[in-house]
Amino acid sequence: MRVDIAKGILEKNDGLAAENRRMFAESGVFVVDLMASPGAGKTSTILATIAALRDRYRIAVIEGDIASRVDAEKISAHGIPAVQINTGGACHLESDMIRRAVATLDLVELDLLIIENVGNLVCPTDFDLGENAKVMILSVPEGHDKPYKYPNIFQVAEAVILNKYDTVSFFDFDEAEFREVVGSLNPAAPIFPMAATKGDGVDAWAAWLTDRIEAARAGESA
Amino acid sequence: MRVDIAKGILEKNDGLAAENRRMFAESGVFVVDLMASPGAGKTSTILATIAALRDRYRIAVIEGDIASRVDAEKISAHGIPAVQINTGGACHLESDMIRRAVATLDLVELDLLIIENVGNLVCPTDFDLGENAKVMILSVPEGHDKPYKYPNIFQVAEAVILNKYDTVSFFDFDEAEFREVVGSLNPAAPIFPMAATKGDGVDAWAAWLTDRIEAARAGESA
Repeated sequence: MRVDIAKGILEKNDGLAAENRRMFAESGVFVVDLMASPGAGKTSTILATIAALRDRYRIAVIEGDIASRVDAEKISAHGIPAVQINTGGACHLESDMIRRAVATLDLVELDLLIIENVGNLVCPTDFDLGENAKVMILSVPEGHDKPYKYPNIFQVAEAVILNKYDTVSFFDFDEAEFREVVGSLNPAAPIFPMAATKGDGVDAWAAWLTDRIEAARAGESA
Repeated sequence: MRVDIAKGILEKNDGLAAENRRMFAESGVFVVDLMASPGAGKTSTILATIAALRDRYRIAVIEGDIASRVDAEKISAHGIPAVQINTGGACHLESDMIRRAVATLDLVELDLLIIENVGNLVCPTDFDLGENAKVMILSVPEGHDKPYKYPNIFQVAEAVILNKYDTVSFFDFDEAEFREVVGSLNPAAPIFPMAATKGDGVDAWAAWLTDRIEAARAGESA
C-alpha cells in the first residue's frame, strides 16, 4: 500500500543513497538500477548483459520483487552471485534494502552490480539507490504511447532499452513517434532496440555500458 | 512517490469507497475496476467490451493515468462518455478521485461504469474504489511467472483476462503453469484468454460481465 509521501522519507533515502554511492565508489564497483514494467524483460536483459560482459567484468545482481525468488534463481543458474530482495508490498527498492543486500556480497571483488528494481513504471523513479546510472526498459508490446503516460521514468533514465524489438512488426508500435516523445522528454538518452532473449541488439547496449564503467573508473563519472 | 502507508489512509479510503458503493447501487450502475501493467491492453479491452455490450447497456469510462489524456480521447472517439483522471505521481486511483470523476457523469443514465486504473500490478490492489468487481488483465508478453511475483493482484481480482493471447506461440508462455498458479491463488476466478484488439475471446468475458451485472440488478450482488 502506498500514498504520496512526506518529504522526510525521500530525504532519509537520499542520505542512505549517498552512503551507498560512497561505498560503491570506494569498492570500485559500477552500479546500474534497471527499471521497467512487469514482464518487460528485465531479467532477460540482465542475462544478456552478463553473457556480453562476463569475460571482461566480475558481475553480481540484486533482484527486487514483491515476492518469490524466481529471478535470483535464474541468475544464479548462470554462476553469477544473485541476492533476492522481497519487498513484501513495496513497489520499489530503497537504499536501506540495497545496503542490506550488498552486505551479503564481496563488493571489492566486483566490477559491475546490476540491480533489478520491482516491476513498475512509477514508484522506482523517485528513489535514489546510490547507483551510477538508472536505465529503463520498455518492451514493444507495452506500446509506443507509454512515454506520454509515464513521463518521469523516461526522464530519470540515462538510457532506454526497447526490448522485444523482434515483435515490432507484430504489434502496432510506432517507433518514430516513440523516439520523438522520448527525445523530447530526455534528449540525451540513447535508445537501444534489443531482443534480449535472442541476443539481438545487445552489443550496442553493452558497449554503452562499458563506456560508462570505464569513464567512472577514469574518474569521469557523471 | 510512495511508501508503506499508515492504516489511517486505507481506512479513510475504505470509508469513501463505502459511500461510492452506496451511490453506485442507488443509481443502478455496475462498476468494474480494471487493473493491469502498463501496456497490457486495458484500453483495448475496454473498447472491445464497449463493442460487445453497448447495444445492451449504457456505458461510461473513467481513465486513470499518471499523465496525459490519450486514453480518454480513444474512448470518447467511440461516442462513449470518458473522464480522465491524472494522478500526478500516484500509482493507483483512490475513492475520492472516483467521487470527483463521477460528479461529471449522469450516473442514473448509466448501466455500466468501467474504471481503468493506473498501469501497475502493485498499488491498485489495496484501494477499494466502491466498485462491484475488480478484474485484472495479464498480457501474454509479460510472462507466465507474474502470479509468483505479484500474488496480491491475482488474489483480489474476481476474473483474470489473459490478453494478447494471439501471441502465445510467439512468447514462451506456459499457460498450464499460469493456470495452475492463478488457480492456487484464487480458485474461483475465471481466466479469459483474449486478443482484445482483434475481438477474439471477448464473448466469454462479456457473458461473464453480463451475468454479474444482471445478478447485481437482481439483488444478488456479491
